[in-house]
Amino acid sequence: MGTEALRAETGRPVRPVGVLELRDRLASGALSAEDLVGQYIARIEAREPEIRAWAWFDPDFVWEQARALDRHRRSGRPIGPLHGLPVGLKDVIDTARIPTENGTMLDAGRVPLRDAAITERLRAAGAILMGKTVTTELAFMHPGATRNPHNPAHTPGGSSQGSAAAVADGMVPLAVGTQTGGSVIRPASFCGVTGYKPTFGAISRRGVLTQSPSLDTVGVFAADTGGAALLAQVLMGYDADDPATGPDPVPDLVTPASAEPRLKPIFAFVKPPGWDDAHPDLHAAFGELTERLGDRVFEVELPAIFDEAAPRRQLINEAEMAYHYFPYAKRGGEQLADVTRASIGSGNAVPARDYLSALALRDVLSAGVEEILTRATAILCPAAPGPAPEGLGSTGDAIFNGLWTYCGAPCVTLPLLTAENGLPMGVQLVGARHQDARLISAARWLTDWADAEATTGGTS
Amino acid sequence: MGTEALRAETGRPVRPVGVLELRDRLASGALSAEDLVGQYIARIEAREPEIRAWAWFDPDFVWEQARALDRHRRSGRPIGPLHGLPVGLKDVIDTARIPTENGTMLDAGRVPLRDAAITERLRAAGAILMGKTVTTELAFMHPGATRNPHNPAHTPGGSSQGSAAAVADGMVPLAVGTQTGGSVIRPASFCGVTGYKPTFGAISRRGVLTQSPSLDTVGVFAADTGGAALLAQVLMGYDADDPATGPDPVPDLVTPASAEPRLKPIFAFVKPPGWDDAHPDLHAAFGELTERLGDRVFEVELPAIFDEAAPRRQLINEAEMAYHYFPYAKRGGEQLADVTRASIGSGNAVPARDYLSALALRDVLSAGVEEILTRATAILCPAAPGPAPEGLGSTGDAIFNGLWTYCGAPCVTLPLLTAENGLPMGVQLVGARHQDARLISAARWLTDWADAEATTGGTS
Repeated sequence: MGTEALRAETGRPVRPVGVLELRDRLASGALSAEDLVGQYIARIEAREPEIRAWAWFDPDFVWEQARALDRHRRSGRPIGPLHGLPVGLKDVIDTARIPTENGTMLDAGRVPLRDAAITERLRAAGAILMGKTVTTELAFMHPGATRNPHNPAHTPGGSSQGSAAAVADGMVPLAVGTQTGGSVIRPASFCGVTGYKPTFGAISRRGVLTQSPSLDTVGVFAADTGGAALLAQVLMGYDADDPATGPDPVPDLVTPASAEPRLKPIFAFVKPPGWDDAHPDLHAAFGELTERLGDRVFEVELPAIFDEAAPRRQLINEAEMAYHYFPYAKRGGEQLADVTRASIGSGNAVPARDYLSALALRDVLSAGVEEILTRATAILCPAAPGPAPEGLGSTGDAIFNGLWTYCGAPCVTLPLLTAENGLPMGVQLVGARHQDARLISAARWLTDWADAEATTGGTS
Repeated sequence: MGTEALRAETGRPVRPVGVLELRDRLASGALSAEDLVGQYIARIEAREPEIRAWAWFDPDFVWEQARALDRHRRSGRPIGPLHGLPVGLKDVIDTARIPTENGTMLDAGRVPLRDAAITERLRAAGAILMGKTVTTELAFMHPGATRNPHNPAHTPGGSSQGSAAAVADGMVPLAVGTQTGGSVIRPASFCGVTGYKPTFGAISRRGVLTQSPSLDTVGVFAADTGGAALLAQVLMGYDADDPATGPDPVPDLVTPASAEPRLKPIFAFVKPPGWDDAHPDLHAAFGELTERLGDRVFEVELPAIFDEAAPRRQLINEAEMAYHYFPYAKRGGEQLADVTRASIGSGNAVPARDYLSALALRDVLSAGVEEILTRATAILCPAAPGPAPEGLGSTGDAIFNGLWTYCGAPCVTLPLLTAENGLPMGVQLVGARHQDARLISAARWLTDWADAEATTGGTS
């Protein structure tokens, strides 16, 4: 990865030498936005019938943006940090005058009047809105139509399935999704792309479908770590309309994604709850990975109280979903999938006291995670319990994601492992809250290390 | 009010010409902290057996602070904004090495290791910690021992009853309390002092007993508006340990409390839910007040949805209290008053969905309040449904307070009215969130106007 030349052939996956270099070529004029989107549009038109990653896509809308951005650049005016880079947006993120249907018939034909904060930031940064990507129903568990580009008989994961598949298939270099349980990291792992869920509250959710405000987190998908860092950094920032965002300065993520770290990272290898039930290929791959990492990794056992994370996270998710999806349940509950209805039903039965208790445990577990991260640069663990399962009826298991979402910790998944059936498996790195730059630095180092290992077969 | 000379006689109420002038005399050395606390200590020793405002009071502790502060001033070093001013602290606010018993036998002998954020700020500002004032049981409804200084057969209100009575009786010029329903504004009204509950989140609650984090608000009691503004301004500020506080700059409250406003305020007179059941003296007094204010006041009718405020606030209060007081209920539920136990019981039965719904309605009502405050400087309404009721078995009705606490709006009560039985009745002013300076300015103007009315009997 990261070393293939940009392929110009129509309909072939567009794999830049790296998203940051693509950005530089667009900025210098070596590559025009029009030329670039032409390749992506051709890829989408060739592959979309099979992959079904897009909920809304209009080539004319893309062409118009690209031409306007090229005119703008040629005029010599300053350009934004994403100038000319196409970005896919999960169809739970509002786009003014463009349909945003939240993966449900109940929102068919819904066209927001106002952009989400994310969409505003993308437009201001010079990004090209490539289209809206498929989401599961209301960003919950019932699958949308998307298929895994590595094997269309397998799920791409969920809920941000269109974003993950579109990036994986080379239809777009960057995409945005959301994670309430494992909806960014899991599909990124299943589809073999870089997924990054920043610290809870780093990116405003104004104009994004609200499922569970204590958990909902915006994340990104990219062809590489540099792309994920670049996109996330543009999206981050305080927003008075989202109380989860804070007055913290936006971290510089692009620098740690572009440079060797001054200190090599140390990883704390964690076998999270659910480890024993994971796929044998995953057990084997992590055995090899940690062995090769040698003294750069040590194993940490999570205290037993971390077993509480999954049920407590689910309780918060269901209780808040029962409240926030009440209008859907009331308006057309019978149109909702069984799994969605059942979880709303569970949520309706949650007592407020248990809900508050579940919110409080989060701080305890976060403190535990952050104690580990005083001794390690990042926690290293699997992104999902194995490669993407066969079948499109389920999006797979978020057991290795919910814990970190609950804690609000930033997570990255890197497509470094391969199962025996050829499907990718992600390596997840977890950082301390608000230490996203440190996490990105560790991700960059691990990627370089893995590339070197693949080339030389040597030890670090 | 505000024009009496400082009385030096032992045991007489200490009524400065104004708290701000007292501050200036302490700062210049015209008055020593030792001389000042001597008067207050004498007053407390004379009156405490009847009033019972103090949960913990040690004259030696006060003398030592005063002597140290006098030495500090004489050394020529910079002094803090409250240098030498005594402050009473409600006994739900943690004080290191000083008992903090939260008004319950279950916390008898509890001595915190660490100061509350409030206490830290007071010490840093050069204030004298005068002692801990009586609270109702766990700052809820079951009364403590305090009596109303105006008539000891009447309640002083609650829950910050010691703070209100101590200021009213001239035992201390300043005191701190908390309000979850009406626990600052109501006792201030009943006791005839200035009470000020700033915007929700303006003052950190780290180290303050948590009853209901969505509602708990720190407030102040003072002999006058200048004192309330001075004390509150010192206490305000961002604290990473209290998520309700924000990155907002601390407003300058002392200037608007000290100067004529550049524009005369306009008041929106509101008859809040419960108005019809209020005391006839209150109806008469507000009739006269609004008539005399003439074109400086106009009446606004609250939409019917504001009737929902009281039950929704109560639901939030009970649900959060059931969670946060669970350790008390578990450890010694039978030692809790019936009213506390019953409300914890109600709280245990609240569904999370209703709780979240009640939190959401708050934003709707806040928007309604803030719309009114685009047309008026402040809302004008009663602080309580009448003068302090007879008897010590109840702390009175918070019906005119919970609405504003729920909305997070800043409130001031001014002791401008008197019932036929001679007991004070407060005039409450309500401002828009984060516009505390504007509210204080309106309070200062209304006080001056009332003084002029009382002197001349003329119209504005």
